[in-house]
This record gives sequence, C-alpha cells and structure tokens, in this order.
Amino acid sequence: MHPVLINGQWISAKSSGAFTATNPQTGETLPGEYPISNWDDCDRALTAATAAYQEMLKIGREPVAKFLGLYADKIEGQKQELAAMANLETGLPVAPRLHDVELPRTIGQLRQASAAASSQSWTLPTIDTANNIRSLHASIGPVFSIGPNNFPFAYNGVAGGDFAAAIAAGNPVIAKAHPAHPSTSRMLAELAHAAAGEVGLPTGAVQMVYRTSHEDGLRMIADPRIMATGFTGSRHAGLAIKRASDEAGKPAYLEMSSVNPVVILPGAIAERSTDIVGEFCTSCLMAAGQFCTNPGFVVLIAGETTEAFVKAVAQKFSDSPSGTLLTSGVRAALGQSVKTLIDSGAVLVAGGSADQGPRVAFENTVLRVSGSKFLKSAETYQTEMFGAASLFVVAKDLEEVTQIMTHLEGNLTGTIYLAKDGSDDAAYTKVATKLRQKVGRLLNNKMPTGVAVSAAMNHGGPFPATGHAGFTAVGFPATIRRFSMLQSFDGVREDLLPDALRDQNPDGQLWRFIDGNWTQK
Amino acid sequence: MHPVLINGQWISAKSSGAFTATNPQTGETLPGEYPISNWDDCDRALTAATAAYQEMLKIGREPVAKFLGLYADKIEGQKQELAAMANLETGLPVAPRLHDVELPRTIGQLRQASAAASSQSWTLPTIDTANNIRSLHASIGPVFSIGPNNFPFAYNGVAGGDFAAAIAAGNPVIAKAHPAHPSTSRMLAELAHAAAGEVGLPTGAVQMVYRTSHEDGLRMIADPRIMATGFTGSRHAGLAIKRASDEAGKPAYLEMSSVNPVVILPGAIAERSTDIVGEFCTSCLMAAGQFCTNPGFVVLIAGETTEAFVKAVAQKFSDSPSGTLLTSGVRAALGQSVKTLIDSGAVLVAGGSADQGPRVAFENTVLRVSGSKFLKSAETYQTEMFGAASLFVVAKDLEEVTQIMTHLEGNLTGTIYLAKDGSDDAAYTKVATKLRQKVGRLLNNKMPTGVAVSAAMNHGGPFPATGHAGFTAVGFPATIRRFSMLQSFDGVREDLLPDALRDQNPDGQLWRFIDGNWTQK
Repeated sequence: MHPVLINGQWISAKSSGAFTATNPQTGETLPGEYPISNWDDCDRALTAATAAYQEMLKIGREPVAKFLGLYADKIEGQKQELAAMANLETGLPVAPRLHDVELPRTIGQLRQASAAASSQSWTLPTIDTANNIRSLHASIGPVFSIGPNNFPFAYNGVAGGDFAAAIAAGNPVIAKAHPAHPSTSRMLAELAHAAAGEVGLPTGAVQMVYRTSHEDGLRMIADPRIMATGFTGSRHAGLAIKRASDEAGKPAYLEMSSVNPVVILPGAIAERSTDIVGEFCTSCLMAAGQFCTNPGFVVLIAGETTEAFVKAVAQKFSDSPSGTLLTSGVRAALGQSVKTLIDSGAVLVAGGSADQGPRVAFENTVLRVSGSKFLKSAETYQTEMFGAASLFVVAKDLEEVTQIMTHLEGNLTGTIYLAKDGSDDAAYTKVATKLRQKVGRLLNNKMPTGVAVSAAMNHGGPFPATGHAGFTAVGFPATIRRFSMLQSFDGVREDLLPDALRDQNPDGQLWRFIDGNWTQK
Repeated sequence: MHPVLINGQWISAKSSGAFTATNPQTGETLPGEYPISNWDDCDRALTAATAAYQEMLKIGREPVAKFLGLYADKIEGQKQELAAMANLETGLPVAPRLHDVELPRTIGQLRQASAAASSQSWTLPTIDTANNIRSLHASIGPVFSIGPNNFPFAYNGVAGGDFAAAIAAGNPVIAKAHPAHPSTSRMLAELAHAAAGEVGLPTGAVQMVYRTSHEDGLRMIADPRIMATGFTGSRHAGLAIKRASDEAGKPAYLEMSSVNPVVILPGAIAERSTDIVGEFCTSCLMAAGQFCTNPGFVVLIAGETTEAFVKAVAQKFSDSPSGTLLTSGVRAALGQSVKTLIDSGAVLVAGGSADQGPRVAFENTVLRVSGSKFLKSAETYQTEMFGAASLFVVAKDLEEVTQIMTHLEGNLTGTIYLAKDGSDDAAYTKVATKLRQKVGRLLNNKMPTGVAVSAAMNHGGPFPATGHAGFTAVGFPATIRRFSMLQSFDGVREDLLPDALRDQNPDGQLWRFIDGNWTQK
C-alpha cells in the first residue's frame, strides 16, 4: 500500500480500505494499491497544517516563492516520466496533450505563482495617508485542494492552479489526489515534498492523502482548521462541498459544471460554414471532449444553411474515431446525460452509445432540439454531457435566441460567432447583452476550449458554473486572492506593519494604491 | 397607511398588516402606519428591477453617477429635517451624532460612490495584449439591500453604504427599510426617487418596501431575479439570510456581529491608565454602545494596575447617565446577553439591569471573567452585548492571552494597546500574530468605534463577523466590487468591448492593469 504524505513524511496511512487505478485504454487494473485514509490521517494532516501556518506567517514569502520555482523545475526535469504515468492512468495522449501542453502550462503556472508570491503583486496594498489606514490581502490559513479527473497536472490538487494559488498566498495545502490518477499525483507530491524540504518550508505546508470517505471529506471541509477549499469536479460533489463550507461559514471555490453555449449567427454561417464546422469539431472532440470549457450547447437559427451545418458536424463526428474516456464512471455519466436529453425530447443526430470493447469510450455524439422545446424544459436541456457530445438548439428566429439566452444557467464561457462583414452586428448586440451576464468569459469567433493563464482570464462564472461570480480559478494574480483575507491596519506603528504597507516601497517595484493612485514609489 | 415605492411610483402596498414606530425617548407610538408588504409587492418590485437592469446596461454609468451626486445634494439640503426625524425614531442625538457625523458621512459616501461610478476605478480593468484577453468587474443585477437599526442614514437600505455600492456598480436596488425608523427611510426614499427621476434612471432602479414577513424576505433573497443581498443586522437574521442565499448559489454580504476584542498590554496600562480608561469609556458609552465596532471584549493581564483599571472603568460607567436604546427589542436582547454571561460565570462589576421608566434604556454594564474560565466556554463568553456593555477577561499571563486569541471568533476589529516606550513590543508580536487572523481591521492605541470611509478600510472580517473574509462593507472602491461579477473578453472585436477595455484609455485617467503594470495610458 502506498504511503500518504503527512507532516513532511511519507507514512503508512490509517486507512479504512484501498483502491486501485485502471488503464482506460485497456481496461486493465494498474499495479499499486492506494489507501482510503480514515479520519486519523485527516486529523493529523489538519494539525500539521495548523502548525505549519504559524511558521509560514513567520518565515514570510521568500521560501514560498522559492518552493514554487523549485517545484516547477523538478516537474520540468521529469516531464517524460510524468507524462508516461499520466497517460497510463488517464488515457490522455502523451503528445501533444500531456507532455507538450498540460505540463508546460502546469510548470508555467507554478512559475507565475512563484513570481506573484515574491512580488506580492496580488495583495493590492492600499494606503490612505490622511487617515493612516492601510490594507492588503494576506494569507488565510490551511486550504483543502481537490483536483478533478480530467487534468492530471494543471488542476491536480497537489500541483495545479488551486494548489499554486493557495501556497503562493502563504497558506499550507492539504491536497486530495484524484483516485483516477493516484500515481501521477504521488510523483508530483514526491517532487513537491523534495522541493519543500530543500527550501525549508514547514513540514505541514504540503500534504497529500489519496482518498477519504465522502463523510470524512466533508468533515475536513467543515473543520475549523481549514479556512478555504478549492475544488474542480462534478456538480454533485461540488454542491455537497458547498453545503459543508457554507454551513461552516467559510469560502469554497468550486468549478462545477458548464455547457459553454456557442451562438452561431446566420451571417457567420453564410460566410464561413466549413471553417466553423472544423473549429467546432476540433474543439468538441479533442481529449474526448473532457474539458470544462467543451462547447456542449450550440444555438443556431433555423434555415437551410443551419441544416447543412448540422449535417456536416454529424458527418465529421461519425467519421472521427472516439477518444478514450478517463474512467468508466465518466462513460456511465455521459450515457446517462445523453439518455436524459433524449428522454426529454432531444433527437439523436450522431453517436449516442458507449463503444464496445475493453477500451473506455463513447461514440462522438450530436443531439438536437428546437428552441421552443428548449424553452419548455430549459433546465433539463442544460444537463452537462461531459465528453465528446453537444446539443444543438435550433431557434426559429433571433428573438427566440435571446429568450434562450435569458434561460441559461451560469457558465464558464459563452461564445458568439458573427460575420466579419458586419452583417451580424445588430444581432450580436441583442444576444451578447443577455449572454454576457451568464458567463465568466465571452468569446468571439473562437471556440472556448483552451484557457490561457492570463491576468485577464476569468475561468469562473455565475453559479452553478462556479461558486462565486467574482473570482477566477485561472490567471495570476487574481486567482491567489481567492485564498486570502482582507486585512486593514488602523494606526499601526510603521515598524509593526507588513513591509508592503510601510512608507518605503519594499523593493521599489511593488504597485501600491496610495491615496487613489497606483504607484511604484 | 404609507405607500411603498415600486417601479417609480409611490403606490398602495398589497399588505398583510401594518406597523408603527416608537419614540424610544418617551416610549410613545409615533404617528403614521406602515405596511407589511406581501409577496405581490415583492414580486412587482422584482419584475421592475429586472426590467430596470436591462435599461441600466444600456444607459451606462453616467446617469448612475449623476443620480448618486444629486441624491447626496438633496440629502444635504434636508439635513435638519432628516436629523429631526431620525432623532424621533431612534433616540440618537441630533447633534453631534445625526446632523454632524452620520449625515455628512452618508453624503460623503454617496459622493465617493458617484465618483467611483463615473471613473470606473472599481472595475480593475485588466488587459493582456499578447493573448488579447481583457477583463473587468461589471454589474451583476438587482440587489436586495437591508439596513440595520443603529445607523438610520449611513447604513440605511435606501441610502447607506450597501445601497451606494450596489447602485454605483450599475445594479438596481430593492431596499427594505428598518422598521425602527420607517419615516426616516421614507424621507430618504423620497429624495432618491426625485433624484432618480431627474436624471432619468429606469423606474425600477430604486425601490423600497418597509417590511415583509420573514418568509417573503427569504423568498426575495432566493428569487432568481435577485443577484446579491447586502445586510447589516443581527447574527440570527444574518444566518437565515446566508442560508437562503447559499442554497440559491448567490452572494450575500452580511455584517452580523462582533465583540471587537481590545487587548491592553501591561506597559500601556502602566504608562497611561487614566487616558485609556477615558478612551474606552467614551468609545463604549457613545450612542449607548450601539455600534458594530463597540469594544465589548477587553483582555487584560492580572495585576494591581489591572484591578485599578477595572475599578476606574466601573466607576465611570456607574457615574455616566445611560443612553437611550433604539428599541425595546434591543433592550431585551441586551438583558438576555448579560444574563447569558452571568449564568456562565461572569461577574457583574457595574450596571446589569434595564432602567425603569418609559425611556428605553439599560444601565452601563461591565462584567468580568478570568482567562481560565473564558477558555472553558469560549463561545458563550463571546456572546455579543449590543449596547453600552463590555466583558473584561483577566488573563493570568501573556501565554493565556495568546490562548484567548486562538479561541476568538471572527470579528470586525481587534485592538492592541501597547506602551509607547517599546516595553510591550515582544508581547505585541505574540498577540498580534494570533489576533491579526481573526479580525478585519487591526488597531493600535485607539478604540475601534469610528469607521473612516477609506479605500484602505476593512469593515468586514472572518465569519461570523461577516459573510466573507475578503470583502469590506465600507470604503470605495473595494465595497463596490462586492456587487459585481468578473467578466473576461476573449478575442472580442474592439468596438464591441466596454470602453474601459478598448485600446484607448476612455478618459486618459482610468487606471488599468496592462501586461502586468498599472497605467493611465
């Protein structure tokens, strides 16, 4: 049985059971057993994190910044081994996906987090000289970080965006590995552990368990020693986490579900239907559609060109090989979602069934429904199909499209394709005004998959896409502020202030908001 | 029966009952009846707010900025009448409190909100030119604003900080008047209505009902047409609002309760006991202690000077006349809190009983308890006494003080008095490290009452003081961002972007975060 990482040591878990991982490409069980930690493990990790936090308040930000940089270097040094293991456990291709896209992004995120931790740019230091009141965002305390199945690196609980952000703020992190890729998580945690040791982070700063019971997981979230939770995963699990956090009065940053509506206006189809078919199919089929920003909901206006468009997509979906899904659970959930939509009245245009054979797969799937039907059961028709599947909603006119927009739930992204010659501009404004309020990121003329790690990114959006409309899970420095508290200092003696709030700029480069203006002075 | 303000008109309420206000200085019922609106009123207001929001998205920020400025002017023009009415309804003194302190603050807040709405400074426009991704904070939709009993102007649902912030972001507001000062709220709403009409705000932009059933209030909060709620008031009501908001997946900004711990270190007492006695009594007795930042919890280290300190405070409390409380409900709750503390083992040092006679009042009250007793029932001993009352916790040594800090709940403020000669510095660091994590604002050598409307203010703090540790209810521009959503624009054509995100700075003055630097270019 693999040990867990608690308080700076790989130790035997106090476990209530064990689990194994599966190679979804072959259906075979992979070697190695991993513990389902019981509350003793959780409790020890919580106690160690609490002690670590007190230490982290003392040692300041430089060890944290160094840790993040060194960890990134170590991951870079093991890219091949990591990509190979993640491929075994997830079925995602080594190249380009794991080795050339996701690992560089993960390494880049850790480096951006390191730079932000060092510069303190995320703290928004604010000084009111007339009142001698000063404020900044500061660390909040131990964070519980729970990653999803679909990004073994970039969203991993012990290496991904939430981890990087929470640590960069100066918080200890207790990570929960995703049970679909335990050894990928173990390899990452080993590198993190080594890096933490080399820079002298407190022993409880980076910890990892593989799995707990649902009950213990929720108990962790509600425990007074946890100050915030970061989660990426299913809506069902996210809502349970939200309830536990809400009840305890603490924040949970949840990325739960999104169908990512794509509206294709008539001028755009008339102008470049073939291009858009290609872009859509690439986006929706990539990695078997297992992206939170997968374009799973397409809105079109009825007409001949739209019929041709749907037909062309269906053809491409049928002609393309199905991708490997992460787990048999993903396959079962996808089948269930497809069934829910069909039972409600959506019509199958392509695919619709699980593949036969040991490989975990599902046919590329297109469903369609009329705008009027959608409006009668709007909630059901927004059931997420996590996989290479999309629902086409064919509205009778632009007015119906705007009504559909009004009935959308919150989403991570919303996309509008419009003609380049300006002929869709009036329609665009009508649609965008409604869609803008429902999504975190609005795109024009490009598909929503691909999330740049940018200061201007919003990978978040109104509930139920995420837990709060004002925060993003991707992009520094904003993502760090999720795991912070706002601290104001009123009449505090200058030498007792954090260095970012003293009269002298700590390094002559930190941007501070002083008396209504941003300055590096 | 007074009419309610719905959809731009003062109309007869659809009501399920009526209530009256009381003059707490005399115990007499004031003239005028006010409706308890039923769901029909709520529903009409929600529909009007929804329509108004669509209009507000179109008309942009200038009418909102003008409205806030004009509203401030109108309040300034009626200061005397407003102060007189608020005095009748709340018992708070006309001068200096209402006329010279709270009204100027209210007017100043509205003007700061107006300036922020106009400048868009609160939106944090962020541009990543390499990726052509741009983001800002934008309005979120209709906001429900519920004010408290203790600030008839500065936190009024239709004129206070939450109102100003929510409108400044471009959101319609439905306000609930506090039933203890309905005509003060009516006068404010009349001025708001006039100002909104003059600048041409949509009719549903500013609405007010006096009161609803608890059930309808919670139904409002959960209604899909409300996007966020602002609330200041009791913990009990706040938690009910939090549950309703959480369940519906939307933010509630709650200011609920706070005992505002004040730690007085030995060197400070030795150095200037008389001064600190004076500062404490002024702060705790002002306005009968009815401030959310009232110093209700004082931590001292046992010793002769501490005994003298407690004795001097008790003497001053006994010698000072009791203030008038806002309502008989406040008096009853204060009596209950005092009883809870005494039943748990706290000892009465001064006061402790309600005053006799028609005036609503309660004796100035000091209780004390040992540090070791506190540590055995820490939660009970943090029961808020809303009024001129404070619990003195006498610890046996510095170590016990830091333990007490560890057991504190979240608070709006925390204060440390330390010697000016440096003799408390080592002790300060031990205490401040713990206290800092429990409070939104940390003060040195000054009492926590008095909340400057400053960009660096945090009038907020960890739960259960407020609903989220990262937001403040006071201070522009941060307070406005509570009522916003983060909007990212990915590849959106430049002329379809909000003006704050176009290449050209809209007015050459807006601070924007472009490629990692703040600039006005």
